[in-house]
Amino acid sequence: MSHSHPDDPAVVWHPVSVTRHMREQLGGHRGIVIWLTGLSGSGKSTIAHALEKRLYEEGCRSFVLDGDNVRHGLCSDLTFSGEDRHENLRRIGEVIKLFLEAGIVIITAFISPYRSDRERARSMVPHDDFLEVYCNSPLEVCERRDVKGFYARARAGEIKNYTGISAPYEEPEYPELDLELDTADSTIEDCVESVVSLLKNRNVMEA
Amino acid sequence: MSHSHPDDPAVVWHPVSVTRHMREQLGGHRGIVIWLTGLSGSGKSTIAHALEKRLYEEGCRSFVLDGDNVRHGLCSDLTFSGEDRHENLRRIGEVIKLFLEAGIVIITAFISPYRSDRERARSMVPHDDFLEVYCNSPLEVCERRDVKGFYARARAGEIKNYTGISAPYEEPEYPELDLELDTADSTIEDCVESVVSLLKNRNVMEA
Repeated sequence: MSHSHPDDPAVVWHPVSVTRHMREQLGGHRGIVIWLTGLSGSGKSTIAHALEKRLYEEGCRSFVLDGDNVRHGLCSDLTFSGEDRHENLRRIGEVIKLFLEAGIVIITAFISPYRSDRERARSMVPHDDFLEVYCNSPLEVCERRDVKGFYARARAGEIKNYTGISAPYEEPEYPELDLELDTADSTIEDCVESVVSLLKNRNVMEA
Repeated sequence: MSHSHPDDPAVVWHPVSVTRHMREQLGGHRGIVIWLTGLSGSGKSTIAHALEKRLYEEGCRSFVLDGDNVRHGLCSDLTFSGEDRHENLRRIGEVIKLFLEAGIVIITAFISPYRSDRERARSMVPHDDFLEVYCNSPLEVCERRDVKGFYARARAGEIKNYTGISAPYEEPEYPELDLELDTADSTIEDCVESVVSLLKNRNVMEA
């Protein structure tokens, strides 16, 4: 786009009177992005909301962005085509920047199957403000759960381009946290505690 | 769009474990939308940031959305065509819903010249959660300031479709607050106090 239109306000930058740092001081914790990625059925949304609850109990401000509040709102004009999925994640990246500036722990729960999209999101925020958390449920576990019945339909060929079956999921190479959800031993509570430990380690909240 | 794609998460709605009300209790104040509207140069961004500062001092969480952080981020793919201006305000409406859910006083500073766009934004949030504040600087005052020199260029015909000169600005009919900025008597501080009084009146914050 051109930035030359006169209604473009960039020409005059108003001094920001309240900074991110000031907001973080008010909240008593840092803002950060926790980017959950993993297959459909890997537990992203469940972990996201359990984590949100846990952070709330610690007095931390957090907010979950997931398909529920993004796909039917901000991105309701987008389809599931490759191009639109890309634009979907671009907009999510821009929204997390705003929430980060607001001093909030922003938790995203999207399949986000491509490394390039996740790296782009990471590159949009300051270094150290992005934690990639891999909800590492093996395909067979997700498929066994198959809450929505979509894996079966994808296997039957009724659904095309289904992540893990007929579309790729690119595993994170260097996630800040790898939640191994392959056994019955690892509970949602354990996963939440692992994230909270990481947050304390990164001085997002007090240890 | 179709909502039938299997990657569409709407099929299973995860229970929200932290509600808006819980966040508001944590913050000690309600969330609300303060929608500033007015001509270019009418003082929207200045008032927005002064208000943000004032609310911060009261321990209220607020956040300003304006051209600076929206036009170059979330809406950087949009032009200033009529259609794109409409989409720009739709996305802003969706973002204010998210911030409202996060329990934040969200302040928007956009010309938003059309009643229909403002009414649509209002209709996107619960009743009583939207305050339209008219930055009522007469055109001649804005034109005299002409910080960016655009009014002069619009008068000279160098710029087309400039709000107030060659494109309409539809005044709010029933704004919750009409800030008359036509005289030297009304200062930014006065405007901020008027908004704060309104917020106390609406029980957004304690009186």
